[in-house]
Amino acid sequence: MTSKIVELEKPKLKNPVFVEGLPGIGNVGRIAAGYLVEQLKAKKFAELLSSHFMPFVLLHPSSSVHVLKNEFFYYKGKGKERDMIILIGDSQSIDPEGHYEIVEEVLKLIKGYGVKEMFTLAGFGIGEEVKKPKVIGAVNDSALVKKYGKSGIDFEAGNRIGTIVGASGLLLGLGRYYGLDGVCLLGETVGFPIIPDPKSAEEVLKVLSKILGLKIDVSELEKKVKEMQEFIKKVQEAQAGAIAQMMKPPEKPADKDKLTYIG
Amino acid sequence: MTSKIVELEKPKLKNPVFVEGLPGIGNVGRIAAGYLVEQLKAKKFAELLSSHFMPFVLLHPSSSVHVLKNEFFYYKGKGKERDMIILIGDSQSIDPEGHYEIVEEVLKLIKGYGVKEMFTLAGFGIGEEVKKPKVIGAVNDSALVKKYGKSGIDFEAGNRIGTIVGASGLLLGLGRYYGLDGVCLLGETVGFPIIPDPKSAEEVLKVLSKILGLKIDVSELEKKVKEMQEFIKKVQEAQAGAIAQMMKPPEKPADKDKLTYIG
Amino acid sequence: MTSKIVELEKPKLKNPVFVEGLPGIGNVGRIAAGYLVEQLKAKKFAELLSSHFMPFVLLHPSSSVHVLKNEFFYYKGKGKERDMIILIGDSQSIDPEGHYEIVEEVLKLIKGYGVKEMFTLAGFGIGEEVKKPKVIGAVNDSALVKKYGKSGIDFEAGNRIGTIVGASGLLLGLGRYYGLDGVCLLGETVGFPIIPDPKSAEEVLKVLSKILGLKIDVSELEKKVKEMQEFIKKVQEAQAGAIAQMMKPPEKPADKDKLTYIG
Amino acid sequence: MTSKIVELEKPKLKNPVFVEGLPGIGNVGRIAAGYLVEQLKAKKFAELLSSHFMPFVLLHPSSSVHVLKNEFFYYKGKGKERDMIILIGDSQSIDPEGHYEIVEEVLKLIKGYGVKEMFTLAGFGIGEEVKKPKVIGAVNDSALVKKYGKSGIDFEAGNRIGTIVGASGLLLGLGRYYGLDGVCLLGETVGFPIIPDPKSAEEVLKVLSKILGLKIDVSELEKKVKEMQEFIKKVQEAQAGAIAQMMKPPEKPADKDKLTYIG
Repeated sequence: MTSKIVELEKPKLKNPVFVEGLPGIGNVGRIAAGYLVEQLKAKKFAELLSSHFMPFVLLHPSSSVHVLKNEFFYYKGKGKERDMIILIGDSQSIDPEGHYEIVEEVLKLIKGYGVKEMFTLAGFGIGEEVKKPKVIGAVNDSALVKKYGKSGIDFEAGNRIGTIVGASGLLLGLGRYYGLDGVCLLGETVGFPIIPDPKSAEEVLKVLSKILGLKIDVSELEKKVKEMQEFIKKVQEAQAGAIAQMMKPPEKPADKDKLTYIG
Repeated sequence: MTSKIVELEKPKLKNPVFVEGLPGIGNVGRIAAGYLVEQLKAKKFAELLSSHFMPFVLLHPSSSVHVLKNEFFYYKGKGKERDMIILIGDSQSIDPEGHYEIVEEVLKLIKGYGVKEMFTLAGFGIGEEVKKPKVIGAVNDSALVKKYGKSGIDFEAGNRIGTIVGASGLLLGLGRYYGLDGVCLLGETVGFPIIPDPKSAEEVLKVLSKILGLKIDVSELEKKVKEMQEFIKKVQEAQAGAIAQMMKPPEKPADKDKLTYIG
Repeated sequence: MTSKIVELEKPKLKNPVFVEGLPGIGNVGRIAAGYLVEQLKAKKFAELLSSHFMPFVLLHPSSSVHVLKNEFFYYKGKGKERDMIILIGDSQSIDPEGHYEIVEEVLKLIKGYGVKEMFTLAGFGIGEEVKKPKVIGAVNDSALVKKYGKSGIDFEAGNRIGTIVGASGLLLGLGRYYGLDGVCLLGETVGFPIIPDPKSAEEVLKVLSKILGLKIDVSELEKKVKEMQEFIKKVQEAQAGAIAQMMKPPEKPADKDKLTYIG
Repeated sequence: MTSKIVELEKPKLKNPVFVEGLPGIGNVGRIAAGYLVEQLKAKKFAELLSSHFMPFVLLHPSSSVHVLKNEFFYYKGKGKERDMIILIGDSQSIDPEGHYEIVEEVLKLIKGYGVKEMFTLAGFGIGEEVKKPKVIGAVNDSALVKKYGKSGIDFEAGNRIGTIVGASGLLLGLGRYYGLDGVCLLGETVGFPIIPDPKSAEEVLKVLSKILGLKIDVSELEKKVKEMQEFIKKVQEAQAGAIAQMMKPPEKPADKDKLTYIG
């Protein structure tokens, strides 16, 4: 095992667009994509498991457990809407190599479904709270700046940003080698990882809805976020707790004389 | 080499149940499963070696060594008892990926023997000593809560527990993808890793015996634990000592001028 | 994915010589090789991607991103000049194994193009600034000392240097097993990683040009370095920032009682 | 590349015994095996390279470099002497998994040459200097204690030793699964890694010579050690220097505002 995708169903999709929102700064992407899944009643069709996630299971109030995973949902567009594949999840890779590996698995899957365009959703920490967070854009082909220039995306802020770490960035960067166009929508947020930012997620979602011609009712977002956040927070705290535990120096041996390192 | 199973014998087992008890908090699972192996006179039939264990051998008083390993035992049920596979061992993986890899190797092996149900035994650190430790349950299918609800398992405490780290959790979580039902029995214990907790192990063992219809005499447990603990403690101390040694910053070079990093 | 080479073109080259200059101390090698690519108008024909690079993309002022990579350029020699393959890049491996893996990928590629001789360019930190940095040489076959002894390379300083870390060293060491002759040209530099040293790069380039009979105008080097450095600095700072971020201890869980490590 | 063996020659050996001495505590094993190679004029026939060694090359005074490696030598026994394979080297694995992988590569090679018995040479740190270091023994089959009980090996000290870390231990532990008998000879030594201990190596060598019926003149050992030590020390210091360098926290970005982590 390193990373593997378990397919639950093989939906027939027509020229689907791909949207990703995994945990990250302010959980902006995770909240936006999770809300999208709920509002569209998108259906889960695949799960990604990985030994690059933390080696634990999450315990639900029902006493049942599940292993950390990323989940693929599909949505069949109504009327002029496009078909979609949405990726959300509990976690991103905990080591550098895992990011590459997982992103490649995702790219192979969505390429197989005929995806040609991707929108990755993320947060951009600016260190202070703002009333109306801007949505900053990054692309994996400069021609896309023109294409999406009138969608309320700030394409001038690229200079302020050095890098996009993790899946939202690598999907664009590696996706180029798969012939996929990609836009990363970065909602401005304070930037403390544990504080979720529904306001920023709302702005990201508005931009995405406009581009995709979706009618998403964002009025319930804050309420839903509270529920969703319960769970996301639990995962993150558990992760932090487990990492802290794993990083603790080993206990001192009781009887040092009996224990010796021999090379 | 990453992880590999060495099979010593291919026992014929009929619908065996799987029980796991590896080192962990309070060594509750390890003690309970180890005692079970002794009392049932279960027979070893396979060993699991892994490069995710510490790279050392343990030296016995007899001057002979053995490499760290996990061991599979089988027991042929008498009368109404069921056949069993029991997993105990010296160590769990020392890195995150290893947990996934080892658990998958275990799942493949037991699936091959027709296992459909698993009981993983572990401790749950509560930070204080209690006279009669409760046994908390977690399942990998919520229907199992009903099935085992009358076995003296506390299925209400799930909310207090965020995660189950390591093999006891992952066997359940990943086992679901192998079609295996799994119950984790977590004995309450103080929670300091090095202090073994035979009392907690006893409670876990009582619950397990009741479910499986085994007649296990727990009167010798505390005595046996003392013997067993000698060995387990030695392993853990050695592991802690070796890890500490490995984590020591490298010695300062004597003549700094001759040694330069060149990129 | 671990490391892979994407070939954009298959140039026909005649007995090409290989030159490597990746980021390192004082960026001496990176600056020298980068300038060489510009001055020769060498053409890119392959890219190397690796999960041993940092898992992020770099964001350009144009708002477009690219994944970290190493790039292969070729140059068809004019007159008596030799054909060349030049390797430059954003990054070296961030873990020990990656260095070996990437270097082997490079060796396989250049061996396939008939390379028999390599020049790897690097810096050697001496802890103080010097007016005219010397170029120190290391070889992977002692016969090469004689061959290049009159090219202005200091082959007496080997004793002051303990090791050559990373691609510049491993290309020589592992290249021996591929039957390739290799010379490492180490320009003396102060040694603080983030301060680029065009003067040292210039000296390295002069030696290389003399050996290869290239007429490289080094007068523009300092100016070009300023431009190039903007970008290299951005990558390095981003890398440092991301590493620092990744190394931060996890946030303390808000409600410690609900989060417990269970082995 | 992970670990690979480069065979330079395929010697025909008759029932050879295997001796290992790699760097470790007091370099006892490395010194003893290295001296053995010199005294027997054993011939190198294979090299082991590994991406689990440090990613650098060592620079010799001649300005030539070599990549870190382990080296296999063979010796054709004269008269009643047995054929031998001797393993020495610059380094052991720098990560836990590497130890397992390298040891398995070694075991496969020597098994292929018909080896049935191994002697691994190492140091045992006791924290104080002693006039006449004892040679402590560990075996991978308790029957071997009887076989070698009269060879001046202390088989009573096993209790004082918890573990044997690295190749000397794992060769015994994993070698058991290859059907190989193994004895580890541990020379008592102070235990500071960087201080080589020729006296301890001498005692180990005496015991080994007696068992194998070799006539090794140990009078030159201390002198030879001085020469050998120059080199071993250089490797270790370089390794320590490089590790220290690699462990340094990344430089602070100059302009923090431009660099932000985005998940």
